[in-house]
Amino acid sequence: MKIKYELKKVEKETKARLGLLHTNHGTFETPMFMPVGTLATVKTLTPEELKEMNSAVILSNTYHLWLRPGEDIIHKAGGLHQFMNYDGPILTDSGGFQVFSLAKNKEKDIVEEGVHFKSHLDGRSLFLTPELSIQIQNKLDSDIAMSFDECPPASATHEYLRKSVERTIRWAKRGKEVHNNPNQSLFGIIQGGAYEDLRKFSALETTKLDFDGYSVGGVANDGESKEDMYKAIDYSIPYLPEDKPRYLMGIGDPIDIIEGVIRGIDMFDCVLPTRIARHGNAFTRYGKINLKNAKYKEDFHPIESDCDCYACKNYTKAYIRHLITCNESLGGRLLSIHNIRFLIRLTEELRQSILEDKLLDYKKDFIEKYHQG
Amino acid sequence: MKIKYELKKVEKETKARLGLLHTNHGTFETPMFMPVGTLATVKTLTPEELKEMNSAVILSNTYHLWLRPGEDIIHKAGGLHQFMNYDGPILTDSGGFQVFSLAKNKEKDIVEEGVHFKSHLDGRSLFLTPELSIQIQNKLDSDIAMSFDECPPASATHEYLRKSVERTIRWAKRGKEVHNNPNQSLFGIIQGGAYEDLRKFSALETTKLDFDGYSVGGVANDGESKEDMYKAIDYSIPYLPEDKPRYLMGIGDPIDIIEGVIRGIDMFDCVLPTRIARHGNAFTRYGKINLKNAKYKEDFHPIESDCDCYACKNYTKAYIRHLITCNESLGGRLLSIHNIRFLIRLTEELRQSILEDKLLDYKKDFIEKYHQG
Repeated sequence: MKIKYELKKVEKETKARLGLLHTNHGTFETPMFMPVGTLATVKTLTPEELKEMNSAVILSNTYHLWLRPGEDIIHKAGGLHQFMNYDGPILTDSGGFQVFSLAKNKEKDIVEEGVHFKSHLDGRSLFLTPELSIQIQNKLDSDIAMSFDECPPASATHEYLRKSVERTIRWAKRGKEVHNNPNQSLFGIIQGGAYEDLRKFSALETTKLDFDGYSVGGVANDGESKEDMYKAIDYSIPYLPEDKPRYLMGIGDPIDIIEGVIRGIDMFDCVLPTRIARHGNAFTRYGKINLKNAKYKEDFHPIESDCDCYACKNYTKAYIRHLITCNESLGGRLLSIHNIRFLIRLTEELRQSILEDKLLDYKKDFIEKYHQG
Repeated sequence: MKIKYELKKVEKETKARLGLLHTNHGTFETPMFMPVGTLATVKTLTPEELKEMNSAVILSNTYHLWLRPGEDIIHKAGGLHQFMNYDGPILTDSGGFQVFSLAKNKEKDIVEEGVHFKSHLDGRSLFLTPELSIQIQNKLDSDIAMSFDECPPASATHEYLRKSVERTIRWAKRGKEVHNNPNQSLFGIIQGGAYEDLRKFSALETTKLDFDGYSVGGVANDGESKEDMYKAIDYSIPYLPEDKPRYLMGIGDPIDIIEGVIRGIDMFDCVLPTRIARHGNAFTRYGKINLKNAKYKEDFHPIESDCDCYACKNYTKAYIRHLITCNESLGGRLLSIHNIRFLIRLTEELRQSILEDKLLDYKKDFIEKYHQG
């Protein structure tokens, strides 16, 4: 069965949507934040810990799993859910973003057929095509697969982006044609940078292909400003069907999530909460803090006293600081738990605000506090 | 309150003892294996995970905690239990072993007063004395503190060892005199290499000081053979009181644990299960295996199908191999869980064998299988 998006409510003053995402692995409320499990593991965490944080969909990376351990091994294991022992829904990206961001020396050769590039692991030549990306994802057996797209940098010209958007639409079509997994949904990706005409064109042409959901892409590639991101969303959303979920790729900054929700986005993913955790950073209502800072040496309070995460219920900043300082992996684990839970709590509060038609008030309060830090 | 050891039974054909260790943080059966949490964390694991493995006492390292975060911070946090959120019993070693094994360039200057050496972290000059070791441990507020001893290599001569043992006894006395924590027990350490006369002398003199328990030390220093270890135990045990626990320091090889139990040891600790985990190794009934081996690529079975640990109940060798190969810390975490649980299960089975007076049969079966691998 394919996923189904059920729209429950649109907020009074904004485009924010409250909805339900029905999947083969459970039904979950949107807007939602999806933790990233690049290599079939949300770094340092178990599935049970993700559930305790009230996590719903997680994201895994096709490019990384293609290289290691290879899609055939995951297929033989019974698919990604079985392989990693996660019974919640999984979304896989297409590899498109990684090809453009991770390719060795960032060298790549984009041709109509696909993209030639070199592995970030060992430099060997690789060729990823829209068909191959979908075939790999079919084997991974994720709940949601993404179309293979080109992810140009923010500096790309209108002329370049126009050609790129046209090719990405042709790639989306080719991917859809080979897609062959009745239990897997397929999303299309809207590109077009910060140009209104290109976003409109991309959205209209991509929705014609009738995907199970749509993503606003090209907002976290290379050099995009906040304004570019807002434009990308605002120029895409009007052309997306109401009955399909809308996913903003690669965005996890708390304020960006709020701005995305206000503009009608339902799903977010980002490595931010786990990546900053490894460097000792924690989200708080009063902005990000870095626990390596000496002032936390004797701070025997939790990161946030009103946070319900395992880290905040059981450990002090002084202890987590000690772990991070000593490179003890429990430190990154506790901070990952806190940071992911922070973003999931944020989406829970956003949903409540949509329900109460108080989203703009919520935004104002949140940003005011967050910038005090 | 001090710990209390309650002897329940001695096995029919061996010196193996079944006992109970009563502590301020619960009562636990012996023989027991104690996981090592060097820096106030058993690497990668939470206290809840340790409990799920049926872990009892854990060990933390005074030397490491002295350097980071410092005993004063832990004292201000309310002691080590509070600091690391562990409500089971904790044993701290004296730092003696680390001074001899970790000191920068292994350079040290042993004088009557203590040991001058350089920090393994930044090379700064440090001076650790028997008094300071105990004072640090008093502040850490562990359940069991260890006396500060010299840990000479196996190559030390009888002449050297004799002087060293005498000094270690003087150090034990000095430490006991400054010990000042009514809730903390203090163990003495028997040294003397593989020499019968020195072990006897050390045991007789140390027990005169009336410690709360005794450790057989100097079996995991540098270059000791299995025979040296067995001699060290056999030459020490006859002079140790029956009503005090006996602890073999730094030993965690499964067969060594069995041999130690047979010789009358009650407590073991070792970094082995967590250290080998980080390198992809797992204990099994049929010997150690390394999951990096290509043959596990498509092995969709648990490490041990009859193991009750979280890793074996939920994950395949292929998945854990993938994690280890990709340097994903969940891999080391799952292997640590398995390896610690393996040793704890071993002690559970040893206790059952003592109860049934079948220890030598158990040993024979275990070793036969273990060497098949």
